[in-house]
Parts: sequence; structure tokens; C-alpha cells
Amino acid sequence: MRSRLFRSLAILLLCSSLFAQTATNNSAQLQGFTREDSDSERALEARFDASLRREDLREWMRRLSARPHHLGSAYDHDNAQFIAEQFRSWGYETEIEEFHVLFPTPKTRLLEMVSPEHYTAKIAEPPLAEDATSNQTAEQLPVYNAYSVDGDVTGQLVYVNYGVPRDYEELERRGVDVRGKIVIARYGGSWRGIKPKVAAEHGAIGCIIYSDPRNDGYFQGDVYPKGAWRNEWGAQRGSVADMPLYPGDPLTPNEGATTNAHRLPIKNAPTLTKIPVMPISYGDALPLLRALSGPMAPDEWRGALPIPYHLGPGPTTVHLKLEFNWDIVPAYDVIARLRGSERPDEWIIRGNHHDAWVNGAEDPLSGLVAEMEEARAMGELVKSGWKPKRTIVYCAWDGEEPGLLGSTEWVETHADMLRRNAAVYINSDTNSRGYLSMEGSHTLEHFINGVARDVIDPEKKISVYERDRANRIINGSDEDSRREARERADLRIGALGSGSDFTPFLQHIGVATLNLGYGGEGNGGSYHSIYDSFDHFTRFIDPNFEYGIALSQTAGRAVLRLANADVLPVEFTGLADNVDVYVHEVMKLADDMREETERKNRQISEHLYEQVADPATPSVPPKPQSIVPFINFAPLQNALVRLQESAKSYDAAMRAYTARGGNLSPAAERELDEILMRTERAMTTQEGLPRRPWFKHQIYAPGFYTGYGVKTLPAVREAIEQRNWAEASGQIVIVAKTLDQVSAEIDRATARLRGTE
Amino acid sequence: MRSRLFRSLAILLLCSSLFAQTATNNSAQLQGFTREDSDSERALEARFDASLRREDLREWMRRLSARPHHLGSAYDHDNAQFIAEQFRSWGYETEIEEFHVLFPTPKTRLLEMVSPEHYTAKIAEPPLAEDATSNQTAEQLPVYNAYSVDGDVTGQLVYVNYGVPRDYEELERRGVDVRGKIVIARYGGSWRGIKPKVAAEHGAIGCIIYSDPRNDGYFQGDVYPKGAWRNEWGAQRGSVADMPLYPGDPLTPNEGATTNAHRLPIKNAPTLTKIPVMPISYGDALPLLRALSGPMAPDEWRGALPIPYHLGPGPTTVHLKLEFNWDIVPAYDVIARLRGSERPDEWIIRGNHHDAWVNGAEDPLSGLVAEMEEARAMGELVKSGWKPKRTIVYCAWDGEEPGLLGSTEWVETHADMLRRNAAVYINSDTNSRGYLSMEGSHTLEHFINGVARDVIDPEKKISVYERDRANRIINGSDEDSRREARERADLRIGALGSGSDFTPFLQHIGVATLNLGYGGEGNGGSYHSIYDSFDHFTRFIDPNFEYGIALSQTAGRAVLRLANADVLPVEFTGLADNVDVYVHEVMKLADDMREETERKNRQISEHLYEQVADPATPSVPPKPQSIVPFINFAPLQNALVRLQESAKSYDAAMRAYTARGGNLSPAAERELDEILMRTERAMTTQEGLPRRPWFKHQIYAPGFYTGYGVKTLPAVREAIEQRNWAEASGQIVIVAKTLDQVSAEIDRATARLRGTE
Repeated sequence: MRSRLFRSLAILLLCSSLFAQTATNNSAQLQGFTREDSDSERALEARFDASLRREDLREWMRRLSARPHHLGSAYDHDNAQFIAEQFRSWGYETEIEEFHVLFPTPKTRLLEMVSPEHYTAKIAEPPLAEDATSNQTAEQLPVYNAYSVDGDVTGQLVYVNYGVPRDYEELERRGVDVRGKIVIARYGGSWRGIKPKVAAEHGAIGCIIYSDPRNDGYFQGDVYPKGAWRNEWGAQRGSVADMPLYPGDPLTPNEGATTNAHRLPIKNAPTLTKIPVMPISYGDALPLLRALSGPMAPDEWRGALPIPYHLGPGPTTVHLKLEFNWDIVPAYDVIARLRGSERPDEWIIRGNHHDAWVNGAEDPLSGLVAEMEEARAMGELVKSGWKPKRTIVYCAWDGEEPGLLGSTEWVETHADMLRRNAAVYINSDTNSRGYLSMEGSHTLEHFINGVARDVIDPEKKISVYERDRANRIINGSDEDSRREARERADLRIGALGSGSDFTPFLQHIGVATLNLGYGGEGNGGSYHSIYDSFDHFTRFIDPNFEYGIALSQTAGRAVLRLANADVLPVEFTGLADNVDVYVHEVMKLADDMREETERKNRQISEHLYEQVADPATPSVPPKPQSIVPFINFAPLQNALVRLQESAKSYDAAMRAYTARGGNLSPAAERELDEILMRTERAMTTQEGLPRRPWFKHQIYAPGFYTGYGVKTLPAVREAIEQRNWAEASGQIVIVAKTLDQVSAEIDRATARLRGTE
Repeated sequence: MRSRLFRSLAILLLCSSLFAQTATNNSAQLQGFTREDSDSERALEARFDASLRREDLREWMRRLSARPHHLGSAYDHDNAQFIAEQFRSWGYETEIEEFHVLFPTPKTRLLEMVSPEHYTAKIAEPPLAEDATSNQTAEQLPVYNAYSVDGDVTGQLVYVNYGVPRDYEELERRGVDVRGKIVIARYGGSWRGIKPKVAAEHGAIGCIIYSDPRNDGYFQGDVYPKGAWRNEWGAQRGSVADMPLYPGDPLTPNEGATTNAHRLPIKNAPTLTKIPVMPISYGDALPLLRALSGPMAPDEWRGALPIPYHLGPGPTTVHLKLEFNWDIVPAYDVIARLRGSERPDEWIIRGNHHDAWVNGAEDPLSGLVAEMEEARAMGELVKSGWKPKRTIVYCAWDGEEPGLLGSTEWVETHADMLRRNAAVYINSDTNSRGYLSMEGSHTLEHFINGVARDVIDPEKKISVYERDRANRIINGSDEDSRREARERADLRIGALGSGSDFTPFLQHIGVATLNLGYGGEGNGGSYHSIYDSFDHFTRFIDPNFEYGIALSQTAGRAVLRLANADVLPVEFTGLADNVDVYVHEVMKLADDMREETERKNRQISEHLYEQVADPATPSVPPKPQSIVPFINFAPLQNALVRLQESAKSYDAAMRAYTARGGNLSPAAERELDEILMRTERAMTTQEGLPRRPWFKHQIYAPGFYTGYGVKTLPAVREAIEQRNWAEASGQIVIVAKTLDQVSAEIDRATARLRGTE
């Protein structure tokens, strides 16, 4: 006990001396706070930082990862109870909320090459002496893709690279057709669920997904257990449900999967795959790919296996047989509340999932234990007399891995309440070493930059903001982004697609959202394998939990500021600036497509493709495409101008208000907050996106053909990408109206602020 | 005999019908000809085309590749005699000119890994049942690099990627030093001789060069004998003499290696390597690279071996022992002449080498047999009564492989005569299937475009110009080059660096030069191996010798036109346009370096590199560099303007002359030719390039640190690249004066043309 106290003191002293380096930031007034409240908030945050303990993270990770704890497993339930007990012990009103969700697990998994030779895929990851939990074979979920349909198919194999739509265009150019074939795609280039979806659209009857050593194996570094990277037999489990349609329980879209929920028959569930899908290791992929012939794959498609990558079809012929137990299993969400003292109906929600594919030390426990430590430290502040103005809700979600089940069902169950009360949702998931990744709603861009300026990087003793900025200046993907990192007041934050539990909050309800985590240095290839273990994490990822503590400091500080601020610290200039970028991107997209279409059509009509083609290699010239019409973007442009002006006016009003010392009455502050909360809600429409009404946000969505990857202004952008010009024109009007709604809310907030003059 | 005649007729008929497709070109007046002479020239070319026979190419290739025929071998001499006999039988005045050159061959070759385990490199290519000549082990030169010094070194291994200067900067950034170490570099990224040169400059004591399967093996396609690509034990022989200093016999720079030539002592020969060098297969490289540890190589450095590419140093420790027989051997150049009827002292020289590393079916016989067929067909024209106006000289060079020995020694021996008489040199070397590659002096750009418009692609039945243009429009490396291919009157031809026998003509003497060949489709990995055989060539490269015939048609047509033209068909607008590009490139180079230096220095002074660096990975921030001063490019810019104006005036004068029907007296035409021949001579200086006076051309040179790759305006460009600002300023003045000399010659030619008005 003594030694721990001593260490905490040492950390406190260290932190104090470091804060001195960023004194300018620490003396700045915090957004949303009066001068006075800003100072006491900073003092509170210093106490918060001082009480964070790396030992907690280590012990909790060890405990929670001790056995496999996937959705539906005994240890998953045990973990939920353990987490709930902790929250209770720290003073939170805690409950475990239970849902009942469809979760298929494998009954039969057979993949064999039947021609030109026979090979039966191992589809098993061997236990390793160097990894203490890797031998828990009886409790481990085997390697599989959740929500693949049952199937028993035999067919010639075709290599389809990442299996995204563009790859099928390349195949067509080489005369390769996947109809009636089984495709093999490598992981990467898109979210995995896109691969079987696109394969089925092109007529394939089965889909194999493998981890190529180029992306996820020895090409990246020494393999486990010598190094951190995926070894020959490591394979990636994962969901292949069509989550860009809707996430959560496939049987209960738009509705919480409670005991009595209305459930679709399994055969009607639209998010199950259309064809059987199976993930394999590169050890299992090698014999299959080596036996392929046909044209060579394009250069960029070739991975790091020591073979020529041919496309097929065949002669490799494979037999894939999959059968699943289509069970309904319980999901346990842990929900813990600290009631707000002044505005209990405004909720700051913080979440991370607790279920894993196997032992899940990095995914998700690295993020979860940081969240728990935040909550514990906050509980200590409460015990010492502090109370948050707003209600704080800590969540540990179950069933994220198969499809954001726990979070989605909870959000769907409490949708009305959340629409009224949810101010901000802050998500984390896996955490590693390196740079802070900041993503989320752009109304929070300035806010989270402010937080990042006040958290110290454990390796470099500068703020995590400064380190991220240095990284963008040196390693930014292009000159514009490098210059922007140097010159823009705030670092631009990434827009959110999907891939973790923020999706239902942001995209279904319209709750302003942040997703935070550290990464870029603690690399490796344990993702969704049995080797994502305590041993692997503490050797290769964040051995001393320093970045776990940094995450606690970052997300915890965000929660504290959001909970304590006099006025919710959202802002709209950053939003308008980002929407400006998106509007110009979609306009440029149409222009580029027009030019490219004209260029290609001309080349086709001049027979240039035939003239260039090598007669020794199969080659089909591209087909001419209809020209790209000019589209009326004016509604979007006008809405953008209005948004920019509204943002500017709010800024001016806020500056004036701050200069006056922030003199709204508590009731007026509450009213203002309510308007501000509605600004993100105003970015949604009741109808949602075309063909996927569950997704209601009009600025951010996961791509229908990219999965996790974000599409901004999705209805417009995807209509253009799909060459649906009529829909593009129609959606421009809808998105413009939506932006006008946002401007109207901002104007209301401005008026409320000015009403005090 | 009958069937051959029939086939020739069929080809003739086919060609006739095809020519109809490009009728506009065939009716156009040929550059340098009067209308009348143009028509008779076209008729002559049709007869020439009609007499070309694929069977000849096949039989000669079979005969010449039947045994290994490297410099100094019995079969090399036998081949020279065979070739000379052929030329004599076709009516050429033929001689074999003999030189005596230094040619080291291996006595001891030992490469072994002594730690962490023991492995002795095989350094041997196994005979294959599928390749009839691969088992001629007794006559094959073993795998080695010619002009490596003897050596016996042991040291830790470091992987240096391509081993070019930029790669050593990356190593420094990762804290890896090669002093006292043995480096292993992969083939590619530069000419091979650069690798040991740069390694020695950085303090390495030995150099291994291997063929990575990424560049030259299974990553590219099925390996031999299943496919065309380099197999596990295939290795690339080749010269590593410092040819950017001077090519040819290392002992006789600037002087023909005749019996009584002055010879340097071997130990003083500056073009021998400074450290021992040895090429190996990827089969031999794998154990060495697999045992390396240390930091991971940068992503782009990683090849296709199934291992993590570490940099080292060590623990791999290797022992390299090399001893050579330092023999002086005879080189046999075959020189065959058709004396010009009107201007015998103006020579059109055509050459291809005949020596190979082993059997050399593709390199060099694919080009040589096409040249021989040209010469045979031309001989037939002579027998039927035609006589060239100018003298035609056909050459078959020996000793190209070790270092352009035969051509260089011949040029050095006859330098004065060539300065007086050489009008144009046309080179070819290996030939394959695909697109015409046109490189050379830009005074011949318009001319060779005209030739390409009149040769029909055997696969596509359009002109080879059209096919090349289509390829550039579709596959051009950037938008500018794609647009240019569509819009520019002529396809831009490549500038020449080095790598084949054109170098002494162009760069030592200043003879206008072309280098021609087909390629892009018949790919494979037999280069400089025992598998470059008749079997390999006729399976994978140009099975029916269709592109061999296309090369005969292209180079033969060029020779015929150059030999018959009333006025030498050189032109200067294309030259000026290309020099314009080069001048702007070197100006931009300095500007870009200035900006980049400022950017980097700022980042260094702000400690951004330290802030970004991962403490778990060794990393050394770059060192600040002195700022790039503004350089006076005005002399170059003024010289360019003068060149452009001179070119324009010559064009106008030539148009007027042509419109008048071309009415110079024979003597005046001869005088004009002499001036035109001097224009390329005027691009040279007596002093040559800084530190390498053998290279006299001021517009084209092989890069001092790239080898084969061209550097245009080399003295200026390389001074800037090496940050030698004083030298850059000085060389700008010299190059400007040289360009002024060229303009003065052009003005003289213009005056001569106008003198007839």
C-alpha cells in the first residue's frame, strides 16, 4: 500500500512539472466555462490525473482476459458482473441491462481443396507455450465469420484481391467472371463484411477471406511469438453482417432486442450474408492460391506469399461447408450512472465494449480498463465532495464484436429518452501506444483539441496535441494536409463511419459523438485471434499501460469538462469548415467523374484499349458509360453559406457572452444547452438514407460499399458514386434542408445567448 | 524454297493491304527528300520489307546461341567469323577488327554465412531438361560480376535495398552504419555498378547483389521452366566497372586497346570496384536475409521473400572470397561497309553487339539477327542495282557485356575519322514483343517518328507509331504525358544514358544517335543467366520473330532513309523543345530543393522528428543542410531562346527550300550535310564533364549515381543534386556556351540553305 501511494505521488510531481511546459494552455480559459469555473475545473482535473493508477489497468486486464469472454460465454457474464461490482463500489448507480440477440456459432466448418490436389484447411490457431491463455481450446470460439449463412458449396476458386467493387472491374477487364465460383479475398481494403456482399452481387457462391502476410504477417515484422505479427496459422474472426444496412441484432431492426421484441424470422433477416463465408490463415490460403492459374493478378493485388498470384478461375476447386447454431443468447450491458447535480437530464455518456472474440486483451480490454480507471477516479472525486452538473453515464457494452449488439439494442430501447437527454457520447475501443486519434462530430472539434492540448504524452512529455500535430506535419499524406496541420488553429478531426459502438448514438439518434484512442506505435497482428492476450499486449502493445493512463486522462478530462461546463462546449465554425470541404469534395467528385468518363469513352471509341492490349494476355476493353450530367449543387452551396454565417454569429455571440462573464440564469443555461443538444439531432432526418433508413445522420455514415470507412454527405456522395444522377439531385435538396435545420438551431442558440444582452 | 517464296509473297500482299490503312503517311513527302526522291525511296522500302524473312532470324539465333559465347570464348570468335562471312556473302566489305582488353573471369568464388548458422551459397544455376543449352556447364561463365576486385572479407551483413545514395540516408535515419560491414543489395533501382560504388563510399568492405523475387522472380509470374521468370537459383551476371567514369577497357581510357596501346597497371585502373562484389540468386539470399535482425526495413524496401526484411547489422555474418584471372583477351568487332555512291565520307553506322554472358538468345542475339536480316536485305537491293548515297557501316560488337568494350575501343581508335565522317549511329540490343521504344538525339526525333509511322505492328496491323501513341495515352505515367501523347505532333523520344554500344558514339564523339527496340510484352527473367536461351526466347519472348522483323523494318528503314536522303533529315525544333524541358527541370530542381531544405530545417529546429519518433524503434533525426542559394540560370535561359530562334529559322529555310523543289548543287548539299553533322558535335566540349572528361556531351550523360539512367544537362543537374552550388553556376555558363555553339551551327546551315535563294 505504501509503495503505491509513493508512486502516485511521484507521478503527481512528474505531471506537475510537465504541466509547466504547457502553461499557456493551462492558463487559457476553458470553452464553456466562466473564468472562475475554468480555474476550479483545472484544479479538479489535476486531482483526477493524480489519482490514476497503472496498476489498476494491468490487474483488470489480467482478470478480464483470463478466459475467453465472447458474447454468450460464461466468462462474458462473469466479466459483466465483475465490472458492475466495480462501478457500484465506486459509487455509481449500476445495473446490468440484458438483451436477447441472435448469435450464430459454428457447428460444421469444412474447407477443402478437392482439385488439382487435396488439402483440408486447418482453420485452427495452435496454442503457444509463450502465451498462457492460448491453450484454452475448450472455451475459445473457433475461427469463423459471424452471420455467414449456412452453406455447402463446391466451385472453382477466383482471387479477387480485397473484393471491393473496383476489383471486380479489374477482373472484368481480364475476362474473369466469378459467377458460380468461390472467391478468395484478402483482408484489408474495406471492412470484411463488404467482401461477401460484393461477391454475392457478382454471382459468387462462396467467399473465403484470408490474412495475407503482406498486410498482416511476416511482411510487417517478426511473427508471434517471436514478434508481434500474425503467424502462419493466425486467422481473423469477425462479423460479416451487412451493418451498413443496420447494425445490432439482425432480427430486431429499429427496436431493442428485449424479451418480448418483435423478431424477424431468421431467413428474412436482411443483414445475414447471401453466401457462406469463412476466414482462414495464410498457412491455409497458400496451397489454394499456389494451385491457381489463369491471368496474373495486377501488381498491386499481389501479396507476400512466395508464389505468383494468379486470378484463376481454378484449377483450384474448393468445397466449403458451413453450419451454425442459430442461437438467441443474452447480452449484458453494464450501465452505471452519476446523477448530475444541476442538469440531471443532460447526459454525458461514455462507453467501451467488454465482449471479445476470444481473450481480447487489446480488443476491447485496453480501452475498457482505461474507461474503468476514469470511472474509479471520478468516483473518488465524488467521495471527496465534487458533483457533476450533468449526469454521467458509464457503459460497458456486450456483443460489440458480432455487430454492435449491446450498444445498438440499448440505444434502440431508449431512443426517445436519448433524443431528449443525450448530450454527448464518448467512445473508445482498442488502445495502443503512439498518437492520439480524435474522431467525431465536428461540433466537438475545437473542444477535443482543447482537451488534447492539456494531456501530456507519456513518451515525449509534450502535449498529445503537439505530438499529433508534429506527426501530421511530418507524415501527413499530402502537402495540403501537412501545411494545414501547421497553420490551422485546430487539428482537423476525422469523421466517423462505423466499426464501434458510437454508431447507434451518432448515426441513428444524432448524438454528438467522439471516438478516442491512442495508436500508431504498438503494432501487431493479434486482432481477433486467440493471441490477443495479456501476454501479447504486455510484450508488444502498451507494456506499462502508459497510454492506457493517457486515454483515461483524455476521455476522463472530456467527460469532466462536458459534465461541468456552464454551457455545452460545442461550436460550429469547425463544423461549417468541414462541411465546406465535403461539399467541395462531392462537387469535385462529379466533375472528376465527368472528365474521366469523357476521357475513357473517347479512348474506347478510338479503340485504343484494343490497340494496346497484349494478345498473349486476356483483355476486355472497358464498356462506355453514359456521360455525367451537370448537377444542381446550388441548394447545398446556399445551405453551406447559411451554415457558415450562423456559425460566425454564434461565435460572435459566445465571445460577447464570455466577455460579459457569462451571465445567463441557470434556467436560461439549461435552455441553451437543450438547443445545442438539438443541433446534432438536426443533422438527421426521420427518413434516413436511401435504402437504409436506420442511418439517419445526413453528414456522416459508413459507406454502403466500404463498411467502416466514412462517407460524408453520404446520400449525395453515394448517389454520385453509383451514377444515380436523379437520386443525387434529390438528395442534394434533402441534405440542404437538413443543413438549414442545423443553421436554424444554431440561430436559436445565438438568439438565446443574445437575449441576455 | 517454294514455300518460302510463297510466304514472302503472302507477307508482301498483307503489308500492301495494311499500308493502305496508313496511306496518308505513305503519300507524305519524306523529310530530307525531294518529292520525286521521296516516291522512289518509298518504292525501295517496299522492296526491302518484302524481302525480310523470319526464318533467317530463327536460324541465325539458333546457330549463334548454340554455345556460350562470352568475350574471350572460343564460340565468341567462331560467331564473329560466321557473322563476317554472312556480311561478305551479302556484298559488304567486311573485316574483323581485333582489340586486346582486360577481362577478369573467376578463379575463386566463395560466399558463406558463418554466423548465426552456416550456409554456403550455391552460386550456380542448375541445368534444366526443358532448356537444351542449359547443361553446357563446361563452357558457361559462372555467376559473377566482372571488374570486381579480388577480396577476402568477413563481416556482418546489412540490407541496403537498392544501394543507391538515398537508401543510405534512410539507413542513417535508423541508426544503421555500414562501415566495416558487408552490404546486400537487391538488383533494380539503379544500374548494378552503382551499388558497390556507393557501398564503398559509405565504408562497406564487400557487396552482395541478389535478384529479389519481387523484382525478378515469382512475384512477377511463373518461374522458369514453368513460366518465363527467374527461378530460385537464377542469378544475374553483369559488369560492375565504374562506367559512368568511362566505359571500355579499364586499362586504356581514351585510346583504342590495340596491341601496342598504352595500358594502365591493373591496380591503377580507376573503373575497377573498390570492394569485392558478387551476384547471387534469391535461393542463396534467403538464408542470409532470414537470419538478419535489427530494425525493420522501410515498407518500400521489402521484397517478396517470405520473411520480415530486417536491416541488420547482423547477426548474419558472411565471408566473401573472390579471386579472378586478370587476363587480356581478344575482342572481335565485325565491321561491314557498303560504300556510298555520292557521299562516301558520310557514314550511317548501325550496330548491335554479338557477345553474350552465356548463350544470349535475347541479349544480344534478338537484336543482332534483326540487324543481320536488314543487312542481308540491303545487300539484295544492292545486287538489284540500288546504291546508297552515303556509306552504310554495319557493326557487330564484341565485349559489350563487360563494359561496351568492342564499340568503345573501336570508337576511340577511329575517333578522328568518326568526328569527320559519322553522320548517325543507330543501335539496337535486346528485342522483344510489344511497343517500339525510340530513344536518341532529339535532332532525330521528328525523323524517327516518321519511320515509326510507316512500320506496321505485327500484332495490331496499325503503325507502330500509333500503337506507341495509344499506349502513352492510356498508360502514360502522368496526366501531362498522357495529354502530350495525344496533342504533340511527334511522340517525344527518350534521352540516352548508357547501357549499350551507343555510348561512345553519342557521348564521347557527339554523333547523332538512335537506340531502337521493341518491348513491353515479351517479359521474363532470363537476363544475364544461362536460361537466356533459344528455348526460352522462342517460348516466351518473340516466338515467331515477328518483332524481330519489325525491328529490321524500323532500323533498316531508318538506315535507308538516312543513306539516301538529299539532305540529312535532322531537325532542331524538337531539340529546342526538349532542351526547354530540361532547362526548366533543372531550375525547378533547385527551387524544389530550396523549399524542401527550408521545410526540413524548420522541422529539425522545432524538434518535430524527435517528437514523432517511436522510442521502441531506433531513429536519428536528419541533419540540417545549408540553404539552397538562388542560382543564375540566365545564361541557360538566354541560350535556350537563341536555340529556339535558330531552330525556327532553319525550319523556315527548309520549308522554303522544299517548296522550291530542293535545288542545291550536289556540292552544296554535301556542305550542308557537313554542317548538319557538326550540330551534334557542337553539343560536346573538349573538356567533357567535371571529373569524367571522357563524357563530352553536354546534353546527355549516364548519371554518376544512376549508371544507365540518363541525366540531361548533366553537369548542371548533378552539381545541383550534389549541392555544389559554385560548380552549378560555372557549368551553367559552359552549357550555355555549348548551346550557343549549336545555335551557331544551325544558323550556318540556315544560311547555306538560304544561299540558294
